[in-house]
Amino acid sequence: MISRPTTEAGPTTEAGTTAEARTLASELPEHVGRTVVLRGWLHRSRVLKAVTFLVLRDRSGLAQVVVHDACVPELEGLAEESVIEVSGTVTANPKAPGGVEVTSPQVTVVSAPTAAPLFDLFRPTVPASLPTVLDHAAVTLRHPRLRAPHAISAASVAGFRAALDGLGFTEIHTPKVVASATESGANVFTLDWFGRPAYLAQSPQFFKQTMVGVFERVYETGPVFRAEPHDTARHLAQYTSLDAELGFITDHREVMAVLGQVLAGMVAAVRERAGEACALLELELPSVPEEIPEIHFEAAQELLAAHTDEDPRGEPDLAPAHERWLSAWALREYGSEFLFVTGYPTAKRPFYTHPEPGRPQFANSFDLLFRGLELVTGGQRLHRYEDYLAALAARGESPEPYAGYLDAFRHGMPPHGGFALGLERWTARLTGADNVRLATLFPRDLHRLTP
Amino acid sequence: MISRPTTEAGPTTEAGTTAEARTLASELPEHVGRTVVLRGWLHRSRVLKAVTFLVLRDRSGLAQVVVHDACVPELEGLAEESVIEVSGTVTANPKAPGGVEVTSPQVTVVSAPTAAPLFDLFRPTVPASLPTVLDHAAVTLRHPRLRAPHAISAASVAGFRAALDGLGFTEIHTPKVVASATESGANVFTLDWFGRPAYLAQSPQFFKQTMVGVFERVYETGPVFRAEPHDTARHLAQYTSLDAELGFITDHREVMAVLGQVLAGMVAAVRERAGEACALLELELPSVPEEIPEIHFEAAQELLAAHTDEDPRGEPDLAPAHERWLSAWALREYGSEFLFVTGYPTAKRPFYTHPEPGRPQFANSFDLLFRGLELVTGGQRLHRYEDYLAALAARGESPEPYAGYLDAFRHGMPPHGGFALGLERWTARLTGADNVRLATLFPRDLHRLTP
Repeated sequence: MISRPTTEAGPTTEAGTTAEARTLASELPEHVGRTVVLRGWLHRSRVLKAVTFLVLRDRSGLAQVVVHDACVPELEGLAEESVIEVSGTVTANPKAPGGVEVTSPQVTVVSAPTAAPLFDLFRPTVPASLPTVLDHAAVTLRHPRLRAPHAISAASVAGFRAALDGLGFTEIHTPKVVASATESGANVFTLDWFGRPAYLAQSPQFFKQTMVGVFERVYETGPVFRAEPHDTARHLAQYTSLDAELGFITDHREVMAVLGQVLAGMVAAVRERAGEACALLELELPSVPEEIPEIHFEAAQELLAAHTDEDPRGEPDLAPAHERWLSAWALREYGSEFLFVTGYPTAKRPFYTHPEPGRPQFANSFDLLFRGLELVTGGQRLHRYEDYLAALAARGESPEPYAGYLDAFRHGMPPHGGFALGLERWTARLTGADNVRLATLFPRDLHRLTP
Repeated sequence: MISRPTTEAGPTTEAGTTAEARTLASELPEHVGRTVVLRGWLHRSRVLKAVTFLVLRDRSGLAQVVVHDACVPELEGLAEESVIEVSGTVTANPKAPGGVEVTSPQVTVVSAPTAAPLFDLFRPTVPASLPTVLDHAAVTLRHPRLRAPHAISAASVAGFRAALDGLGFTEIHTPKVVASATESGANVFTLDWFGRPAYLAQSPQFFKQTMVGVFERVYETGPVFRAEPHDTARHLAQYTSLDAELGFITDHREVMAVLGQVLAGMVAAVRERAGEACALLELELPSVPEEIPEIHFEAAQELLAAHTDEDPRGEPDLAPAHERWLSAWALREYGSEFLFVTGYPTAKRPFYTHPEPGRPQFANSFDLLFRGLELVTGGQRLHRYEDYLAALAARGESPEPYAGYLDAFRHGMPPHGGFALGLERWTARLTGADNVRLATLFPRDLHRLTP
């Protein structure tokens, strides 16, 4: 019934991992009446008097294995998280999860754990604190509920790329180490580059704009780095930025329209590619309206002044509490979980921001709020060389550190714009996680540099 | 005929960028007889006595625009790389490139350059040195021949992901900053992480292995960093690593089989998605044999000793010249541009390498040579905790810095393995570039940190 692994000192090829075709747990219903080989982890073992139930976990889900022998002492000692191979007969049983189970099994232990998990991975909830979960990611992420957000994250990125591929975008890969700490000055990590100081890139902004001159429409899905000393549930020092930039636009509204299509593509991909994870977390996926509602920054401030205890008029930005209020308002007014806030004050936006025609104190920019949180920032950029020189001069900055970037604008650039979406924030909001760290495999922040 | 842009000081919305449906150059043959709007760059302007030929370049290719008026002085002054909009009639002309041209055009200048390119972007060859090309990437990459490798690179990555998605892999995003310079010790960039020393990740190796415990099959396409002081045509300090790792394998041969499928998927994607770029560069794409030929390291050394002037037997690695010879040999013997060399000496491989059963001095590892160059490294890894402790002890290393990684192996891990493919090397080999920097948008190396 049970074969133990050989206990030779040296590593060898594994018994039981021959090339026999493997069946995944999710495929069992297609194989009723047949003998199959399953491989995975012993998710749970329940030894009763007359019967032992094993639950095997593989990448596709769970499978119930029933051992009817009255007494199998080896099974009692078989630790959860053992890597096992099960050969047995697929038997229909309406009472079993998924309507099938494996009976008359031969169980082989491929690899036995040397320690028990910090908590039972088979229980529906996670009885550990966030730091414990993160400190032991190698094992805690095996818990189906902790794993699910990452399946949803992967599906989201696939949807992002597929939507943009369909719109004629080209994927790019840009440097993550740069010579000057230009884009926002502070909050930048410094490193030693062959004896010279260098900096981790805070965004691919300059590169993606430059590449509009080459490919017109580009995207990148990669890490960005912010040395932000904030210790909050929504800040990470490394996060995955989903960036897009496109040329030949009229203004920021064309960027917003593309973003709407991208969001719809991401939700569709999550539905198609991560359906199991969504079901496990009992998620209600958002519907992306054909036209995402939009409110101008000024109007948003008026609304907040009229309907809340605060008067934010004159402030250059929205506070998190304001974003939550506006999000709730959009849901009430428009039934939309997404809201564009446009026309942020130019002074608070980066120098490359394109002003609103006729009202240069406001920018052709937008933030996208999703379920109360700022998820995306974007807008139209300047595209004329003279405008860049003027914008830098107005901020008292020299154009010199930007030479490689400004080069693009000396050689003819179309009106263009783009956006950046924080993957972890998206996944956290989508899965109802109260901390972006639950949407990050191995978070990096002010305190956390391992595992 | 020609409208100049308004010369207001402040930026405004552009004349001529209304929402009129735009036609791409490549779509012109479908529109013969109709009036279309093209947008792009003035790639070339040839003013003859009775006729002026404009070539417009957009993301899809080139379009010929014919101005029949006897004298249009504005056109003579119109700088190449101007961003223009052309409205005109699509007219069949068997002598025109692509069989169509645009006649009776209205040309609007959207954005004029303030400087001329360093060299003519419309000439078939690039008359500039590599440093010049790289220093001025913002404009030089617009040259169709310099742009083409990057279109091929994007298609390759799409093919990589599609092949692995089809095989049940999950995409992951892992930290690029790590607490200890573990994997290969030297050649690591140091940075200041909120006052603590930290290091740029040299590979996602530890993370992807750990994630086999969660997803069984994972991949990542992201930047890795090597502080290698080599100043060669094939080394970069940042490159894009296409990483995959899979569990429940018998040995490294299953990894090699997956890699074969991935390579076939990459070539197919390049053919489908970057056909224009391939045609422009007159590429012959490699065919990936159903079974890529394979030679053991020992046999490779025997072969080199027998057929070349050198005797590499006893050496722990193959020199670049040996790789070239073996590659040429595989092409002669098997008609294959790909060759696996398996069984490298364990001593030269990282501690997590799985030894060959019965011959522990050799590893269950492989390199893939492609057109003379090492393109991929991979193999089977250890999966038992005790084996890791023994391997580290044998190298005189403490397990302590590896705690978060080793955690995975204490909790049951299946036999697994994976590979890493250098994207820029692949693209360079595929496109015949003699330097990986021509396959990198903005290379980073010993000397280069800008643009």
